[in-house]
Amino acid sequence: MTAHSNLNIVPFVSVDHMMRLVLKVGIETFLTELAAVIEDDFRRWEQFDKTPRIASHSKEGVIELMPTSDGTLYGFKYVNGHPKNTKEGRQTVTAFGVLSDVGNGYPMLLSEMTILTALRTAAMSAVAAKHLARANAKTMAIIGNGAQSEFQALAFKAIVGVSELRLFDIDPSATERCARNLAGNGFAIKSCSSSQEAVEGADIITTVTADKQYATILSDNMVGPGVHINAVGGDCPGKTELHKDILLRSDIFVEYPPQTRIEGEIQQLDADYPVKELWEVIAGKREGRQSERTITLFDSVGFAIEDFSALRYVRSKLQETGLYVDLDLLADPDEPRDLYGMLLRCEAKLGEA
Amino acid sequence: MTAHSNLNIVPFVSVDHMMRLVLKVGIETFLTELAAVIEDDFRRWEQFDKTPRIASHSKEGVIELMPTSDGTLYGFKYVNGHPKNTKEGRQTVTAFGVLSDVGNGYPMLLSEMTILTALRTAAMSAVAAKHLARANAKTMAIIGNGAQSEFQALAFKAIVGVSELRLFDIDPSATERCARNLAGNGFAIKSCSSSQEAVEGADIITTVTADKQYATILSDNMVGPGVHINAVGGDCPGKTELHKDILLRSDIFVEYPPQTRIEGEIQQLDADYPVKELWEVIAGKREGRQSERTITLFDSVGFAIEDFSALRYVRSKLQETGLYVDLDLLADPDEPRDLYGMLLRCEAKLGEA
Repeated sequence: MTAHSNLNIVPFVSVDHMMRLVLKVGIETFLTELAAVIEDDFRRWEQFDKTPRIASHSKEGVIELMPTSDGTLYGFKYVNGHPKNTKEGRQTVTAFGVLSDVGNGYPMLLSEMTILTALRTAAMSAVAAKHLARANAKTMAIIGNGAQSEFQALAFKAIVGVSELRLFDIDPSATERCARNLAGNGFAIKSCSSSQEAVEGADIITTVTADKQYATILSDNMVGPGVHINAVGGDCPGKTELHKDILLRSDIFVEYPPQTRIEGEIQQLDADYPVKELWEVIAGKREGRQSERTITLFDSVGFAIEDFSALRYVRSKLQETGLYVDLDLLADPDEPRDLYGMLLRCEAKLGEA
Repeated sequence: MTAHSNLNIVPFVSVDHMMRLVLKVGIETFLTELAAVIEDDFRRWEQFDKTPRIASHSKEGVIELMPTSDGTLYGFKYVNGHPKNTKEGRQTVTAFGVLSDVGNGYPMLLSEMTILTALRTAAMSAVAAKHLARANAKTMAIIGNGAQSEFQALAFKAIVGVSELRLFDIDPSATERCARNLAGNGFAIKSCSSSQEAVEGADIITTVTADKQYATILSDNMVGPGVHINAVGGDCPGKTELHKDILLRSDIFVEYPPQTRIEGEIQQLDADYPVKELWEVIAGKREGRQSERTITLFDSVGFAIEDFSALRYVRSKLQETGLYVDLDLLADPDEPRDLYGMLLRCEAKLGEA
């Protein structure tokens, strides 16, 4: 970014540039490198300012701001969640984010984050599974084959070594599309006609459905010993996917407990029910999986630090790829105290033209 | 905005476009129209979600997010405050903001807000004075002649009818520049050599200094009966401008008490010291000025609803002026559940090219 001598300029990564960036780097490499940045940030978890996301709820959905800072950089994401959007041809979730310099408060990057959130969610899930699933896990069930499903599959391939997928969605066309999109990536893929069928023989079960309601995607009898559950879809108050009895049999790992207790599967449990913080496992402060028969559960809701990592990673790629444009976002008067003078000089310039 | 059929596009108002917009509309008209939108939103204050700003403090300054919603639109502003920035040629305060549709969560406007914040702060101050200062107020002292001073002067001219200015700054070159920038706007301007001199005969005293520390810009003996004080500069914890004894003699009006008690002049008072909410005066639910001898004080810190009003006003001007560009901020796959398919189609298109 040192190329910018103009203080008014903020690099902007559009949706088109983000797609080109992912394709240029290669999606599996992108996910693997992003996972490494997430792990790096989780290892220094204690350095971050942490706060639950700031949510504005309406009857149609939610708009959230997710800020965090490590004392040097500050990042936040804007993200909405509107389950009914797909009926109108819109995304359920859209997002953008900003990375700033804590020292002067100036934004350093504005980026689309709809695609980036899908990538970071998948990378985060795979990082958790790398630390929690059995070492030889190869088969993953994906229940819910919507917008997040292919990203989950590719992240688990690149980071965990998953090679077999068992797909199920209540909408068979979603499963069909997911299977088609993933063809040629080296997976053995089985399209299943029920959740029950999908979880048969799976080492890892990923649930990633989208309804905003208490649902039971997985019932207790479907989860055998040694399985790792990656519960992605339950991520706001009133939205859960797992039967409570599964939670009670599992070792539960979460991102940031104050947020997960509100938004995650564990909103079904008492407020003091013991859960483990994933960062402690990644930082080597706490054991992950305790035995081959333990059921591990990553109760994922998505935390601001993961978005911070994603923005940090994207920023690290700008100079080598050039995949951004300059945005005239900040006022930069010649004399900083003379903001009004900027207007006068603009007026004079327009008058001449 | 109905012109946009592409769901991925968000109109963006750059700094350059904002300057052109202000000049095209005319700054006094802009301030007057913006003040009307602020009054409109203050009259329906109870409809808004309100929360104190979410601040991330560092030793160098602060980065804040200021969200609010009226149930139909959602807005937030990103703003920093770094007093040392001017030494490096940067603005103390920079800002940008977003307005979104609560119904689907999609952003509808991204705008620079460094200039816009200066305008809305001035418009807000003038709205408060219109309701609180004596009816015939003509003379205003401005103590602190930095980036906000000209905007204050012009807003008070357009909205309150102020025609005489008495300027003071500890840096005489700031006063000189402020007077020079305002020349030709029909003010009688007196540059003063002390705060004491500046407040002589003033109906309204505006304090708008920038130091992040407890300061006493106004001491008790400087404020006579009937004066309206517009205290703009004290706006974060540890930053105040007025001697506590002035507060104790004044009728104090604030934007949002939970925020002002943390950030405003009244942080010097007990947490339950009685203050009045400005919106109640604007909505006609409460009397403003009680007598010709009352000292009224607007303890301004800047609240999210004012930024919401400002974004709403700017958005209303886009179609007639065309002063914006389209930003490719949101992913818009043909089939909303097929985000990954967007990547595949982008890849296919790049392969053909």
